[in-house]
Amino acid sequence: MQKLKMVIPKGRIYAKVVKLLNDSGYSFEVDERVYIPRIEDPEIEAKIMKPQNIPRLVELGSHDIGFTGYDWIVETETDVDEIMDLGFDRVNIVAAVSENNLKTDLHQKRLVVASEYEKIATQFLEQKKYNYLLLRTFGATEVFPPDDADMIIDNVSTGRTLNEHNLHIIDTIMESTTRFIANKNAMKNSWKKEKITEMKMIFQAVLDARQRVMLEMNVPKEKLEEIVKFLPCMRSPTVSPLYGDQGYAVKVAVKKQEVIKLIPLLKKYGATDILEYDFRKVVL
Amino acid sequence: MQKLKMVIPKGRIYAKVVKLLNDSGYSFEVDERVYIPRIEDPEIEAKIMKPQNIPRLVELGSHDIGFTGYDWIVETETDVDEIMDLGFDRVNIVAAVSENNLKTDLHQKRLVVASEYEKIATQFLEQKKYNYLLLRTFGATEVFPPDDADMIIDNVSTGRTLNEHNLHIIDTIMESTTRFIANKNAMKNSWKKEKITEMKMIFQAVLDARQRVMLEMNVPKEKLEEIVKFLPCMRSPTVSPLYGDQGYAVKVAVKKQEVIKLIPLLKKYGATDILEYDFRKVVL
Amino acid sequence: MQKLKMVIPKGRIYAKVVKLLNDSGYSFEVDERVYIPRIEDPEIEAKIMKPQNIPRLVELGSHDIGFTGYDWIVETETDVDEIMDLGFDRVNIVAAVSENNLKTDLHQKRLVVASEYEKIATQFLEQKKYNYLLLRTFGATEVFPPDDADMIIDNVSTGRTLNEHNLHIIDTIMESTTRFIANKNAMKNSWKKEKITEMKMIFQAVLDARQRVMLEMNVPKEKLEEIVKFLPCMRSPTVSPLYGDQGYAVKVAVKKQEVIKLIPLLKKYGATDILEYDFRKVVL
Amino acid sequence: MQKLKMVIPKGRIYAKVVKLLNDSGYSFEVDERVYIPRIEDPEIEAKIMKPQNIPRLVELGSHDIGFTGYDWIVETETDVDEIMDLGFDRVNIVAAVSENNLKTDLHQKRLVVASEYEKIATQFLEQKKYNYLLLRTFGATEVFPPDDADMIIDNVSTGRTLNEHNLHIIDTIMESTTRFIANKNAMKNSWKKEKITEMKMIFQAVLDARQRVMLEMNVPKEKLEEIVKFLPCMRSPTVSPLYGDQGYAVKVAVKKQEVIKLIPLLKKYGATDILEYDFRKVVL
Amino acid sequence: MQKLKMVIPKGRIYAKVVKLLNDSGYSFEVDERVYIPRIEDPEIEAKIMKPQNIPRLVELGSHDIGFTGYDWIVETETDVDEIMDLGFDRVNIVAAVSENNLKTDLHQKRLVVASEYEKIATQFLEQKKYNYLLLRTFGATEVFPPDDADMIIDNVSTGRTLNEHNLHIIDTIMESTTRFIANKNAMKNSWKKEKITEMKMIFQAVLDARQRVMLEMNVPKEKLEEIVKFLPCMRSPTVSPLYGDQGYAVKVAVKKQEVIKLIPLLKKYGATDILEYDFRKVVL
Amino acid sequence: MQKLKMVIPKGRIYAKVVKLLNDSGYSFEVDERVYIPRIEDPEIEAKIMKPQNIPRLVELGSHDIGFTGYDWIVETETDVDEIMDLGFDRVNIVAAVSENNLKTDLHQKRLVVASEYEKIATQFLEQKKYNYLLLRTFGATEVFPPDDADMIIDNVSTGRTLNEHNLHIIDTIMESTTRFIANKNAMKNSWKKEKITEMKMIFQAVLDARQRVMLEMNVPKEKLEEIVKFLPCMRSPTVSPLYGDQGYAVKVAVKKQEVIKLIPLLKKYGATDILEYDFRKVVL
Repeated sequence: MQKLKMVIPKGRIYAKVVKLLNDSGYSFEVDERVYIPRIEDPEIEAKIMKPQNIPRLVELGSHDIGFTGYDWIVETETDVDEIMDLGFDRVNIVAAVSENNLKTDLHQKRLVVASEYEKIATQFLEQKKYNYLLLRTFGATEVFPPDDADMIIDNVSTGRTLNEHNLHIIDTIMESTTRFIANKNAMKNSWKKEKITEMKMIFQAVLDARQRVMLEMNVPKEKLEEIVKFLPCMRSPTVSPLYGDQGYAVKVAVKKQEVIKLIPLLKKYGATDILEYDFRKVVL
Repeated sequence: MQKLKMVIPKGRIYAKVVKLLNDSGYSFEVDERVYIPRIEDPEIEAKIMKPQNIPRLVELGSHDIGFTGYDWIVETETDVDEIMDLGFDRVNIVAAVSENNLKTDLHQKRLVVASEYEKIATQFLEQKKYNYLLLRTFGATEVFPPDDADMIIDNVSTGRTLNEHNLHIIDTIMESTTRFIANKNAMKNSWKKEKITEMKMIFQAVLDARQRVMLEMNVPKEKLEEIVKFLPCMRSPTVSPLYGDQGYAVKVAVKKQEVIKLIPLLKKYGATDILEYDFRKVVL
Repeated sequence: MQKLKMVIPKGRIYAKVVKLLNDSGYSFEVDERVYIPRIEDPEIEAKIMKPQNIPRLVELGSHDIGFTGYDWIVETETDVDEIMDLGFDRVNIVAAVSENNLKTDLHQKRLVVASEYEKIATQFLEQKKYNYLLLRTFGATEVFPPDDADMIIDNVSTGRTLNEHNLHIIDTIMESTTRFIANKNAMKNSWKKEKITEMKMIFQAVLDARQRVMLEMNVPKEKLEEIVKFLPCMRSPTVSPLYGDQGYAVKVAVKKQEVIKLIPLLKKYGATDILEYDFRKVVL
Repeated sequence: MQKLKMVIPKGRIYAKVVKLLNDSGYSFEVDERVYIPRIEDPEIEAKIMKPQNIPRLVELGSHDIGFTGYDWIVETETDVDEIMDLGFDRVNIVAAVSENNLKTDLHQKRLVVASEYEKIATQFLEQKKYNYLLLRTFGATEVFPPDDADMIIDNVSTGRTLNEHNLHIIDTIMESTTRFIANKNAMKNSWKKEKITEMKMIFQAVLDARQRVMLEMNVPKEKLEEIVKFLPCMRSPTVSPLYGDQGYAVKVAVKKQEVIKLIPLLKKYGATDILEYDFRKVVL
Repeated sequence: MQKLKMVIPKGRIYAKVVKLLNDSGYSFEVDERVYIPRIEDPEIEAKIMKPQNIPRLVELGSHDIGFTGYDWIVETETDVDEIMDLGFDRVNIVAAVSENNLKTDLHQKRLVVASEYEKIATQFLEQKKYNYLLLRTFGATEVFPPDDADMIIDNVSTGRTLNEHNLHIIDTIMESTTRFIANKNAMKNSWKKEKITEMKMIFQAVLDARQRVMLEMNVPKEKLEEIVKFLPCMRSPTVSPLYGDQGYAVKVAVKKQEVIKLIPLLKKYGATDILEYDFRKVVL
Repeated sequence: MQKLKMVIPKGRIYAKVVKLLNDSGYSFEVDERVYIPRIEDPEIEAKIMKPQNIPRLVELGSHDIGFTGYDWIVETETDVDEIMDLGFDRVNIVAAVSENNLKTDLHQKRLVVASEYEKIATQFLEQKKYNYLLLRTFGATEVFPPDDADMIIDNVSTGRTLNEHNLHIIDTIMESTTRFIANKNAMKNSWKKEKITEMKMIFQAVLDARQRVMLEMNVPKEKLEEIVKFLPCMRSPTVSPLYGDQGYAVKVAVKKQEVIKLIPLLKKYGATDILEYDFRKVVL
């Protein structure tokens, strides 16, 4: 049987990718001790690796598809097809210095710069014409300043970690999110390409559904037009006649954050029996 | 921008309030270490405090709205508007004594009474004309008797704690549940009042939905009337004609506990394709 | 009031039985420390015991109904009514030996056989005409070979445990799953029998719903027939006319694993506004 | 090389046996996942099993020595040499009934008796001439009464568990502690016997040392006789002359519980520089 | 039998008090669930309470002796005998404000002051002539500023908590450590007084031993005097002649922090076989 | 004040280094959240970093001394003074392949080699003349074969991890243990050099003491010579005459593993009151 080989990142991104797969319908289970996950679809084979390793593994072709942060695609200078930006785990790659360096002209001295990102850091430092010595770090980079480094180049999500170490961002180099990537040759194989395209469609249906809830209500005949007009649905709402000429059942998927404002409004305009519920996928 | 300032109780009530907010649509997240929660609605600002502190904070106006137990509203003699009884965390404030005091006439001796509630306890003891010395407690009150107190005045939910300490309830002073409260001046500001009223409506929709499930079924033409008649819905069910004159799709929100009895009955009366599912809000 | 007495197994099966009860609508809660669970239905009383104890307790009648593995029904030679195979916790009872015994003729020597199942093991060993000494084990049996036993007779789910101890299955004696059982006299009492039959119906509705999801979509008039034809639903789909002659709203419960293939197909055939959501019970 | 095969009990007794081995000098380490412990002495091989399994394993000779409760030696009717009573994990095997049975004549009705100990229970019930049905239990026996059993026969250490289930002891059948046992043939092999005797001696030295602490003090010449007289040592204290005719250094191992009284006394009688410290083994 | 009733504080101080009791020889054990500890000495009875409650309980005489922080002795204005300062759990009671208040003249406005210490806070604020409104807090006080309080009065050990909430100490009101206290009447009862004095002596012996280690070494005859001269012992060292005229065995208890410097020195001066070990009590 | 700056490794080695420092007398405490440890000696300043970072940090001089694995000294090609091999955390750096590659001639194909050690791996692969592509790994390397690598070069302690992934060692490249290292310039500063030498001496005294226990016994006059002769002490035992011409007190530090054999022997030869205890440092 033909197989699609997929690689899934450990760590921070792991839980979100697994939830996406499960919501999509690929019943995904992992035996914690051996890192070999099972997937219900017999045409897919999965493995779990560190996100930093994934771009090169997909480029080399030992896996057809994978999930990883954009930062590591850039850092490892990997040549892969980016199928989809999943929007998860948004971080900035920044340059930061400790308080005492905020008022200094950093171009006047030789900087010790600590970073896990050798390529990204070098390119940034060269372009900004710093005079620097780059220290590749293992694990937490934010503990180096002030004694062991003058500047760090690191990823930042909420900024709390920087804060706790009294570090200040002086430059934002790039933004990174989780990407769904594929090997270039895999995309030239028609069976694999179709399978990957199908996955993308299902992933999109899941991500779209997460932003929305379904509203259902009964609407009297004479109010239908007015209510339909201000309903912020994606397309036109689904309207079915009620029994006995009593009006209409109206159904509409709306953005989650609109509901709080919408329900009082609908009630005011005469809708009754308003219900809200979740759904798991939506395709327009 | 105008802001509504909300205060949320730590401890036993916390999880229930957070679930209510999230089910309502106010995406509420907390960073454990700093006690500063984020809420998606930019017009609301939230803070987490101990429930005992909340009534006074809302009365003083450093917060417009809050959640707290009714017991602490009474104990702190706070002057706030009670918007809604959420029904959570039902406890009784009781007077309890240890076994050896059950057969004594407690009015015959000077009682050492231990309680976290100074005001409530004093009022009760005065009214009952006890001769007492009140000991304000910090933390668990049930460990005081028999050596360190003759009576305690404390809150009780399941009664297990009293049981384990061989304490017996001799009087129930009041009942307390979680309340949604507002500062009196906030209710005079029209923008705030409208926002609070909207919250109340959404909270009610969530609480109502929790008691119910949706039943959906297909009903043959000739059975419709009979079935509709015994359906225990809140209002009339939503009935839509099926395609090809095959009967009707009937939809009705019913109390959870009725379902177990209802499904066998519906089947007997000719309903088919009976489905049960959850929903998150309902407004009638 | 008449009562139905139910006994629920601790351990591996516990969580699955509790979820089944809660999904069914019997709000089931347990106080961890006392093993006395509460159930909302006042006509049912529940207790939690080890699964090995349950068949005899139901047979003796101190409980009317219970849940237990089929293996322990056989092992304890209990005479009960098996109401329903719930399909949970599927295991095989197997005979296994360590690697060094794989190439030996096991009928040539006196085997020490370790097992938690005295009856099942004895019957198997007699029937296969082994020369054996049976060692009843307490707890993990797989640790006995090779020093303390030549063969084990044990239950196996994924086979990992056998693997880790280098044990090889040489015979599969029986298959076991979780069963819903009843005392024979209880089934002769008409009130109890009806209540048990009702439970069985609700359990079945929950188990059926778990395999399925609901798909909802709008279908243009001219595509309806074509789409309805290839929809793999349990019975015919529910079709309702849309407002303004715009086509039909089609609703169909399908097997979970079909969805990934079905959604792209439906879209290709002209369905729009395709939604997927979960439900909790289904009765056909 | 000749080997002595040792089996160590899991569960409640485990930690105490391991501490005894380590204090004795047999550096004992366990890899949690595989149950195969390492011991520094290359002549000893250890395995970990449930205490109930141990008496028969030692009797059959797949292990030369082991540790187990006396209750399981009796229950399994095993023929082994009991080398030493270690005094750990003291429990009573008792018969207990629930409150409502306290006032009944238990010989008047047919009792359902629940017990993990089939042999011990049967022998007791026969001897006491009860009319009974014995229910072999798996796991916690105290949860059977009052519904599922009239009496239990179980082990009891502090009595708390019985208390929490409102059970009352009506008979104490036997007392049990942890024993160091050996296979009878092993004791006929001279190499093994010597090794086992050596272990016993070292175990005794460790157990003796745990009851004692060392006191060291300086004593003026003229007080020596008086102080030595009331010192409650095991044998005569060790007395060494101090430099420069300044008196004596006196050293004595005393029972732990005597120290609190002894130190003030010694000081009063003129001892100075009194020190207390622990030791790990003592052989008199 | 006469009894000495002791009360032990829960929380932060608990572990340290228990260790002191156990090192002293009062084998102290607690059953976590019931708060009733067991002590080997049958003349002592112990109970565990919150530290804030302890001073009044000892003053009232329901306990003869107790352990608590000095801060709560002051706050509760209790009249007890302070037997001994144990030096544990050193904290400062301080006044702190948030950053924005650092540059303000705090006497110019009405301050909202939050504190768990009503008496200590009031006395401080009066004396410093602040214009204030005091808010009694429950639980963490540091979360009140800046919105809910202008100043806090709280206990501080490392200062980290203040730091994390951007609070700055502006005044130190008092210092507090754990105290061993007794009821005044108990000290008039000669049996109790003697028992308390004995405890104090043993506690002191334990605390003294914790600061010290024992050094033992062999010293050649001709070096004895020189070495003895610079040995920083509490009294003169214990010197015993070695066998065969080979010099002396010298033993001396020294402060822990001196050892690192002392060992190289002793070696240089000719001492050999230098050993360091711990002891548990010392009485000079 | 002059300061010696020390850097301590996180992770696997951390606990062992901290225990060494504390046993040595440098009271070392860490506040978990900030990685800034406190040390009692005011002349030492400590910081905690990942072990991989430490060699370069010591070489660059931002720290004077540090602890790290020998593997990372080699991998980072760092020029530091190795003061002492502490013997902790012994691992081998090995080359390993999966089962299917065991029978292949690995020189016949292009190998993908995965390793965290770029330098060590390259040097090994060049020297062995492999045709290879090196993949630098992040985190667990053993999960790469067989799909993502043909060979790994990794550190191995017990071999269990390799085993679980079916990997087989084909070459051992080097052995590594924890080292105490110093910056070369620090060793030229006389104050720092003396301080480092003192630390080394104390560390050695602690490590030596861990291998030994003290035996103390009373020996009758006529047995002394015989017993002293077979005592396996490091130097000659300490012998002091007992009071009243009763023989001698003999004290000797012996290897831990000798004790089990020695005690029975000593008893046989007439020694009495044999005691064993621990000590913390020893300098010969």
